[in-house]
Amino acid sequence: MNLILFDPEEIQHDRLACLRDPRRLRHLKEVHRAQVGDVMTVGIRNGGIGRGELTLLSDDEARFTLDDIGITPPPALPVHLVLALPRPRMLARSLEHVTALGVKEVTLLHTRRVEKSYWQSPELDPAKIHEHLLLGLEQARDTVLPEVHLAKGFRPFVEDRLPALLTGRRGLLAHPGMPEPCPRGLDGPAVLLIGPEGGFIPYEVERLLEAGCTGIHLGPRILRVETAVVALLARLF
Amino acid sequence: MNLILFDPEEIQHDRLACLRDPRRLRHLKEVHRAQVGDVMTVGIRNGGIGRGELTLLSDDEARFTLDDIGITPPPALPVHLVLALPRPRMLARSLEHVTALGVKEVTLLHTRRVEKSYWQSPELDPAKIHEHLLLGLEQARDTVLPEVHLAKGFRPFVEDRLPALLTGRRGLLAHPGMPEPCPRGLDGPAVLLIGPEGGFIPYEVERLLEAGCTGIHLGPRILRVETAVVALLARLF
Repeated sequence: MNLILFDPEEIQHDRLACLRDPRRLRHLKEVHRAQVGDVMTVGIRNGGIGRGELTLLSDDEARFTLDDIGITPPPALPVHLVLALPRPRMLARSLEHVTALGVKEVTLLHTRRVEKSYWQSPELDPAKIHEHLLLGLEQARDTVLPEVHLAKGFRPFVEDRLPALLTGRRGLLAHPGMPEPCPRGLDGPAVLLIGPEGGFIPYEVERLLEAGCTGIHLGPRILRVETAVVALLARLF
Repeated sequence: MNLILFDPEEIQHDRLACLRDPRRLRHLKEVHRAQVGDVMTVGIRNGGIGRGELTLLSDDEARFTLDDIGITPPPALPVHLVLALPRPRMLARSLEHVTALGVKEVTLLHTRRVEKSYWQSPELDPAKIHEHLLLGLEQARDTVLPEVHLAKGFRPFVEDRLPALLTGRRGLLAHPGMPEPCPRGLDGPAVLLIGPEGGFIPYEVERLLEAGCTGIHLGPRILRVETAVVALLARLF
């Protein structure tokens, strides 16, 4: 927690912020070993960043007086990430990684090799997803919450949603064996598509290439999704 | 497990391989749902890669007949990674990530902000480290085991070991706030130094710069060590 991130509803009278949830309270006490009078980096969700002074810390509440909260959060990555739904634990970590890296649009996609049971995982509960996004923001000192969309059918996604996403954006399909290496330092917006463990099936690759995506690869090594997603974003941007 | 990796001691009569450890047996049965007659990608530790046919699968043994094991493993990254010892769970995952990406030399370093208790963690047991390296190799279809060195003192490392490491290699100190952005697509060998959570202290940064390292950064976002290490390697190589 490199930033205490307040929900706008936690701000009272403009300058006073108050948090009551056990997770942040525990973190303040056990990791920060915070004491009244400490000044910390704070932010307001989807708003600015600044300093806040801790004025009260009890068992069920922490109160801060906010200073000027006028610093803009770090720039976002110009990418819409389309990720075949990973297994639950990998999903949790991948959401934290990509949020910390500055991704603001994520679509979780069903593909042939995604196990159907993954769609029933409690990790897909909006509250759980929200929690992982917050962890990523708090890590990277960002305030702007990514949007996560679910696309439970491959064909409807490719036919109905992908064309709009690709308008004005370069489509990049990351898949082992594609002819081009992953480009370095893109200068425009992109849609980055990453398959599940085991990869996209040939039919899916074909449909995505037909839709206008360029196939790219990261070399001969097969990477776990959470490694590949960070490596691709770091190389592209 | 995208590769069944055999220890040279598990090879009998040149063409017959036999494994008995519960981890790989369980993986073969539960994830691969392997059956006698299946042909799989296999490799020999620090040796070649090829195909093996499963000829027996029992409760405590799997036997393979190996085909020509003549494929060279994927190229290594020309980097010696010096990582301030992360907390145990982060260490485990970081070792898997960097092994999968092709790092072959890792030094785990003590710095001021590394908690001393981390050096007592069971994750530093050579057998545990070996296990994480194997998982990384099996993931990336590689056979060449990285070497992991422990440097429990910062000054002895900088004074006695770093000068030799920097001979013929570019030293890169990844640290927030350094003037240069992380370069893209290095063409020579490097030593990459990454600090702990909370970063190197100013004295350490000074000493590493004096030793000849160049300070680089990944932008304004503060990343977890396991995210940063993958992002840096992907951007550098």
